[in-house]
Amino acid sequence: MKITLKDFKDAQERIKSIVRHTPLDISNTLSQISEGKIYLKCENLQKTGSFKIRGATNKIAKLAKEKKCKTVVTASAGNHAQGVAYAANKFKIKPIIVMPEMTPIAKVKATRGYGGNIVLTGSCFDDAYKASQEIVKKEKAIYVHPYNDLDVIAGQGTLGLEILEDLKDVDMVIVPAGGGGLLSGVATAIKLSNPKVKVIGVQAENANAIAQSFKKKKKVVTETSKTIAEGISVKNPGDLTLPLIYKYVDDVVTVSEEEIAGAIFFLMERNKLVVEGAGAVSVAAILNDKINVANKKVVCILSGGNIDFTFINTLLEKAMYSHNRRVKLFVLLPNDSKTINNFYYLLMKTNINILNLHIDTSSAFGAIGETQLTILCEIADARHKQNVIKALKDNGYQIMTEKESGDRYLYISKKDRKNYFSNDPIKK
Amino acid sequence: MKITLKDFKDAQERIKSIVRHTPLDISNTLSQISEGKIYLKCENLQKTGSFKIRGATNKIAKLAKEKKCKTVVTASAGNHAQGVAYAANKFKIKPIIVMPEMTPIAKVKATRGYGGNIVLTGSCFDDAYKASQEIVKKEKAIYVHPYNDLDVIAGQGTLGLEILEDLKDVDMVIVPAGGGGLLSGVATAIKLSNPKVKVIGVQAENANAIAQSFKKKKKVVTETSKTIAEGISVKNPGDLTLPLIYKYVDDVVTVSEEEIAGAIFFLMERNKLVVEGAGAVSVAAILNDKINVANKKVVCILSGGNIDFTFINTLLEKAMYSHNRRVKLFVLLPNDSKTINNFYYLLMKTNINILNLHIDTSSAFGAIGETQLTILCEIADARHKQNVIKALKDNGYQIMTEKESGDRYLYISKKDRKNYFSNDPIKK
Repeated sequence: MKITLKDFKDAQERIKSIVRHTPLDISNTLSQISEGKIYLKCENLQKTGSFKIRGATNKIAKLAKEKKCKTVVTASAGNHAQGVAYAANKFKIKPIIVMPEMTPIAKVKATRGYGGNIVLTGSCFDDAYKASQEIVKKEKAIYVHPYNDLDVIAGQGTLGLEILEDLKDVDMVIVPAGGGGLLSGVATAIKLSNPKVKVIGVQAENANAIAQSFKKKKKVVTETSKTIAEGISVKNPGDLTLPLIYKYVDDVVTVSEEEIAGAIFFLMERNKLVVEGAGAVSVAAILNDKINVANKKVVCILSGGNIDFTFINTLLEKAMYSHNRRVKLFVLLPNDSKTINNFYYLLMKTNINILNLHIDTSSAFGAIGETQLTILCEIADARHKQNVIKALKDNGYQIMTEKESGDRYLYISKKDRKNYFSNDPIKK
Repeated sequence: MKITLKDFKDAQERIKSIVRHTPLDISNTLSQISEGKIYLKCENLQKTGSFKIRGATNKIAKLAKEKKCKTVVTASAGNHAQGVAYAANKFKIKPIIVMPEMTPIAKVKATRGYGGNIVLTGSCFDDAYKASQEIVKKEKAIYVHPYNDLDVIAGQGTLGLEILEDLKDVDMVIVPAGGGGLLSGVATAIKLSNPKVKVIGVQAENANAIAQSFKKKKKVVTETSKTIAEGISVKNPGDLTLPLIYKYVDDVVTVSEEEIAGAIFFLMERNKLVVEGAGAVSVAAILNDKINVANKKVVCILSGGNIDFTFINTLLEKAMYSHNRRVKLFVLLPNDSKTINNFYYLLMKTNINILNLHIDTSSAFGAIGETQLTILCEIADARHKQNVIKALKDNGYQIMTEKESGDRYLYISKKDRKNYFSNDPIKK
C-alpha cells in the first residue's frame, strides 16, 4: 500500500476529460491584508460544486477499466454523493447512494440530478452506512469511501498537481481538512513533486480530529464534530490518510465558527465567490493570522461552494448590522401619547425606514408609567446612523443601540447594565 | 472619428499589465437549461469588480503617454469611478471623483480605497456633473466620460478580443447595455475580427434607451431609468456608442426586474458567482428565452459583481419561501387557551422552528370570539412543509399558507378571498 507520484499523474490523465481544471486566481484584497501573495484555487467552480468529484472519478474510472464492477455504493448526503453519482454515470456504472431518511430533499434532489439512485434509510448516518454495506453484499457492488481509499486520495491529489502547473514558484498551499482525503492527496502530490512547497492543513476548531492526531502523531477520534463547515465535519479521520499527513504536511491549524462565517462573507463581498464553510477555512486561517504568509506565494484551496442558502441568509442578517445598514434603537419614554408621538415625529425626520417596532409598557427596565420602544431601522450607512443617533440625543432622548450584537443587553442584570454600556449609559 | 481593429489591439497591449484577463467558464447548468453551450465571461472577477477599469485604463494610459495631463476628473458614484481611480493611480495621474452629497459612504470608501480624491457636492448627479466640469476648467484636467469616448469604447472592446482568443469558434456574445460603452466596444471589436459572430445587447425593461434607439435607428432618451440593475441605469445613451451599435449589433432585447433578480439568485446558487444586477441581465435573457441559443456556442458577459448586500438579503428572504425553507401559516381559532395550546402542542410535534408568531384577537377575518394566528416557520424542505400542513389539517385545523407570496391575501376583500384561495379555502 504505497502511493507514488505516478499514481497522481495517472489519476490526472484518467479524470481529465470529466473533471474541470479550475481557475487559480490572485486575490489582490487578500494579498494586501496578509502581506503575502494570495491565490485562490476555485474548486467551488468545479463540476458538482466541489473537489470530491476528482477522487470519485479516479476510483470509478479504474473500476470501469478493470471491468470489475457494475454497481458502486456510497453512504453520503454531501458533496461525495454528488461526485460518485456524476462519475459513475460517465462510466455507465450504476451508483447507489444511501442517505439517512431525514436528509433534506434539496440534497436528495441534487444527487438524483447527477444520476444517483437514492436509498433513504435509517435515522442517522451510521444506519445509512450499515444499510450501504448490505447493499454492497447483495449487489456485489463496490463501496466508494469518501476519503479512506488510495484511489480517492490520488484523485484529490490531482488538485495539487494543477496548482504546481499553474503557479510554478508557489511557496505554500493551504488545504481544508475533514477526513483527510484532500489534505493527504494534495500534500503527497506536492511534496513528491517539489518538497520545498509547504503544505498546511486547516480544520474547524469544533471538528479537529486531524489537528489533534497531527500533534500527537497518533490517531485521535473526537466525540463530536458540530461545525457550520459541514463538509469537514468528521470525527474519525482515515487510517490511510493520517500516515500521509504525518509524513507530508507541515502543520495543521484550526479556525473558529465565527472565523469561518467571516471568511464566507468576505469571499462573497470582496471576491464575488460563493464558497461553503468547509471551503472557506483556508481563507479564514489567513484572515485571522493563523499562518505566517508574509512575502510568500500562497494558494488557498476553496474546496467547494455548496452552501445552504438559509445559512447565507443568516450571515447577511448579521452583516447588515456590522455594515451599518441596520440599527436597533432602544428608548424608555413616559407612557403618554404626546411624548411618544413627538419621538416618532423626530425619528421620521431622520429618514430611517422602520422594519420593526416593539412597544413594551411593562418593560423590566422601565419605572411604572414608562414604556420601552425597540425599533429596528434600515439605514444608509455609518454616517446616517450617527446622524440619527445625534438627532435623537440632541433632542434629549436617551437612546441605546444594539452595538452590532442584537439585543444581548436584555439578558444582563440591571446592575451590570450600566458598566456594560459605559459609553452609552441611560441617564434618567 | 473612426475606430479600427488596431485601436482595440493597441488598447489590449496598453492595458494588459493592469487589467486582468478574466476567466471564461462553461456553465453546464445553463447549457442544459437552454440547449445551447453557454460560457460565462467572469468580469465580476475583474479588478475593482467590473469591466469599467478597461476603458478607464486605456483612456488614462494614452493621456499618460502623451504627457497631456496631470489630473483626470469624472462624475460617477459607481463602477466607473473605481476604474478611473485605480487606473489613474497606476499612471501617477491625480483622479478627482465628483459624487452627489448623498452618495452612500460605502461607495465613497470603495473609491477612496482605490486612490480616488472624492469631492462630495450637489444633491443629484446633474449637480455633481456640473461641479466636475468646473473642476476640469480650474485644474486644467481632462474629463473621463463613462461611455461616450472612443478610447473608453476601445478599452471596453478588449473584452471582446479576449473572448475570441479563449473560444475561437464562439457563435454569439450577449452583452449588458446601459450607455452602450461595453456593447459598442465588444460588438465592434468582434465584428471587425469575425463578422460571423452574433452580438446581442441586453437592457433592463425599465432603462431601455438603447433598445428603443436600436429599433428606430434614432436616438431615444428615456424619462426614467429606475432598475435594480443600477450599473445600466442610463437615460441618455452615447452619441458615439449608438452609431457603432446600429452598425455592429445584431439585436437588443430587454429583461424585467423579476427576471434580473432571478438571474442574480441563479448565478449565486448554481454557478457560485456573486454578480450585480447589470451583470446578470445576459443570463436573465437566456433563462427567460429572450434569445434563441439552441445548438450555439454562446458567451454571456457577467459585467460586474459590485452588488449591495442589503439587496442580496432581500432576494434571499424571498428565496427562502420559493425554496421551501420558510412557510407562513394562518389559522383562525376559538379564543380559548385550551384550544390554542392544543394547536401549539401539535405544531411543536411537527419539528418546525417558529421565527415569528402574531396573535390577533380582533382580526377582520375572524368572528367575535375567534383569534387569528400568523406563524412564520422555518422548515427543512418541501416534504417537511407538506407534512406540517397535513398534520394540522388531519387534526381538523383549517390552515392557510402564504403561497410563496407573503401575506398578500390580507389585502384582498373577504368576497374575493374564497376564489383567490380556491385550492385552500377556509371552511368553517
